[in-house]
Amino acid sequence: MGKMRKPIPPEATSVFKGKIFEVFQWEQKMFDGRTITFERLRRPNTVQVIAVEGDNILLLKEKQPDTDYYLTFPGGRAEINEDPLEACKREMLEEIGYSSEKWELFFEDDPVGKMEWTIYTYIARDCQKSQEPRLDGGEAIELQPVSFDHLLNLTDDENFHIGSIKELLLRARFNPDDNEELRRRLFGHSIDVSAA
Amino acid sequence: MGKMRKPIPPEATSVFKGKIFEVFQWEQKMFDGRTITFERLRRPNTVQVIAVEGDNILLLKEKQPDTDYYLTFPGGRAEINEDPLEACKREMLEEIGYSSEKWELFFEDDPVGKMEWTIYTYIARDCQKSQEPRLDGGEAIELQPVSFDHLLNLTDDENFHIGSIKELLLRARFNPDDNEELRRRLFGHSIDVSAA
Repeated sequence: MGKMRKPIPPEATSVFKGKIFEVFQWEQKMFDGRTITFERLRRPNTVQVIAVEGDNILLLKEKQPDTDYYLTFPGGRAEINEDPLEACKREMLEEIGYSSEKWELFFEDDPVGKMEWTIYTYIARDCQKSQEPRLDGGEAIELQPVSFDHLLNLTDDENFHIGSIKELLLRARFNPDDNEELRRRLFGHSIDVSAA
Repeated sequence: MGKMRKPIPPEATSVFKGKIFEVFQWEQKMFDGRTITFERLRRPNTVQVIAVEGDNILLLKEKQPDTDYYLTFPGGRAEINEDPLEACKREMLEEIGYSSEKWELFFEDDPVGKMEWTIYTYIARDCQKSQEPRLDGGEAIELQPVSFDHLLNLTDDENFHIGSIKELLLRARFNPDDNEELRRRLFGHSIDVSAA
């Protein structure tokens, strides 16, 4: 995960700019001296939040106009030039009306080799309800709090869309050391970053 | 993995066709009655082979013109309308010069929500060297056989590009039942499909 980072080179040309995706091409010299047109994509980064309230993690039961219901973390697409942490705060507030003062970057992943696209996963501790959700017309969302153990067992559930941290949840499920470490990061020794 | 399959609807229009990626758009009715332009991509499917020779799995140490060295399974991009199994046979022969008579589909995955793109992973048992590799100018490849246990431990190695089956290897590594099942599928009770 996150390893095959192949940035679009500076000499690449933008050949198409759509609603979400932008396509770049450039001439790439091969080992045998030939030149081939390479192609890569860019799309807005996405964010997701492991939102902790008491002993629970706050998941969403969500539906989009062209999907069935599925479980997911709060999150979504970052705006252009929007800081990932700010995007997390905005999405959590819009989708479930929760906020937090205790944020920590958990995982940063570039899941697709031929695409500039990062998924940022943040932990938000001690989340609190601070307003009513403000959903846009493309979202139907219900709040679904789950326990830590339930969260880990959801790695078997095809309707749980885990966006890039499934491996980390599986390791926490099967490996006692990873389990203890994740439990500590979510529930223990909270660091109040708002005081920094 | 493989769950968020959202096919491009028949009314979608192709708005860009590049070297690898084709971009489609369509008008999507939202829950509140508004209409928004949705966008999705299509790209050629890819294949990879868990190639078994004796007690070993045949990995590649590979380099492309714009990457560092990394470990991977034999495989690559399927041609348009090429059957995934035929693509596996072709790629394994080209890249390492091996062939097999005992093939089984192991896993089929659509890893990216907004893209029509399937990664097919096949098992090839009792692989045998049958010709010299025929590499194209964009590939530098060395054969690297590894044991079953080594393969599972490579799930910790950032330079091993596992394309969509990392979860299955992790489960086989940590869970004795999954370990036994995978070991059996790779090494035991081979089914000779060429006789069918």
